[in-house]
Amino acid sequence: MDTFTAIRERRSVKHYDPEHKMTDAEIRQLLEAALLSPTSFNMQNWRFLVVTDPEERAALRAASWDQAQVTDASITLILCAKLKAHEEGERYWTNAPQAAQQMVVPMLKGYYDGRADLQRDEALRSIGIASQTIMLGAKAMGYDSCPMVGFDFNKVAEIIKLPEDYMIGMMITVGKALKPANPRGGQLPYEEVVLKDTF
Amino acid sequence: MDTFTAIRERRSVKHYDPEHKMTDAEIRQLLEAALLSPTSFNMQNWRFLVVTDPEERAALRAASWDQAQVTDASITLILCAKLKAHEEGERYWTNAPQAAQQMVVPMLKGYYDGRADLQRDEALRSIGIASQTIMLGAKAMGYDSCPMVGFDFNKVAEIIKLPEDYMIGMMITVGKALKPANPRGGQLPYEEVVLKDTF
Repeated sequence: MDTFTAIRERRSVKHYDPEHKMTDAEIRQLLEAALLSPTSFNMQNWRFLVVTDPEERAALRAASWDQAQVTDASITLILCAKLKAHEEGERYWTNAPQAAQQMVVPMLKGYYDGRADLQRDEALRSIGIASQTIMLGAKAMGYDSCPMVGFDFNKVAEIIKLPEDYMIGMMITVGKALKPANPRGGQLPYEEVVLKDTF
Repeated sequence: MDTFTAIRERRSVKHYDPEHKMTDAEIRQLLEAALLSPTSFNMQNWRFLVVTDPEERAALRAASWDQAQVTDASITLILCAKLKAHEEGERYWTNAPQAAQQMVVPMLKGYYDGRADLQRDEALRSIGIASQTIMLGAKAMGYDSCPMVGFDFNKVAEIIKLPEDYMIGMMITVGKALKPANPRGGQLPYEEVVLKDTF
C-alpha cells in the first residue's frame, strides 16, 4: 500500500473480529518494521510486548476500563522502554568505524546519564515514532489499529511484570476491523497547526 | 512508494543538497499528512514550525552544535506542543454526535488537567507519532530526513519565540540527500526487543 494512502486511511479502530488471528509471520513482519524506527543515538530503547495469551488480555482489558478492543483485536501490543538503554552504547554502534564509536558512545552516555527526565522524554519520543511505524505498517497489511493510553499504567505494569527502570509508553491493538472508525472528530485548520518560521 | 519500502529505506541523513528547494505544494503535502497522525482524545496538541528563513536557520544551526543539515536541508521543522491543548476539547469533537461530545470532552479535560507530567508525556507521544508520519512521507516523496534532539532547547525556544505553555519536542530536517546514510550502527536482536506476553 502506498505510504500516503496508509497515512490517510489509518484510523483508530475499536471494533475487531474476535475470531481473526494474525499469523506468526505477519506479527514478525510488523515488529521487524518497528525495529527499523529511528531512536536517539540509535539506542533502540523500546521493548515491544506482543500479548496473545487470552487470560492476560482479559486482565489487560479489565485494567483498560473494559475497552473491548483489548481482547477482540488479534494482538495487543504494549510499548515499553528501557530507561537505562544509554548505558550500553557500545552495542548500538558495533558496525561503525572505531573512531566514530569512540566519539558517539561517550556522547550518548553523557547526554542521558543521571537525567531521569531526559530518559523519560526519550522513551516517549522513541515509542511514539515506533508506534506510527506499527500503525502504518498494520494498515498496509490490511489491518487496523488503536493506540491507547486509557488504562491503569500501574496495573498493566503488574500484569506484564515490568522490571525496574523500564516504563510503559502506550498500548496498541491490531486486528481485522469489523466496523470502520467514526468520521474524524474535528480537525484544526492547517494554518493554526503549521506555522512559518516562528510563533 | 510502498509503506514497507518507506519504512526500510528511511534513514537519518545528514548530507543534503543546499541548493535544492522544496515547493510550497510539497511542504503542504507533507504537513497535511502529519495532521492526520493520531493524538490522544484527538487533541492535536502538536504545532509544526516550518523554518525556511536563512538567517533563522543559521541561528538554529549555531544552537545545534553547528550540525550542517540544519541549514543544508531544504526545510528545518521544529515540532512543538501546546501543553494545555486539553482545555479546548470542544474544538476536537465538533463532528461527533452531541452525546459523544458530552462524554469525551470532560474526560479529556479530567485526564490532563493540572497534570503537567501527563501533559508533557502526551506532547512527546504525539510529536513522536507525527514525526514518523513526516519522515516516512518525506521518504515516499523522494526526500530524506534527520530527526534531531542534539540542540540547545532553551536557545531554540528563544529563536522561535516559543510561547509559555508550549514545549519543543524535536527537530527534523527534510531535503535532497547528497550522500546516503552510513550502514545501520548495530541492531539489537529481534528476540531481545520483541517479547511474548510478559517480561
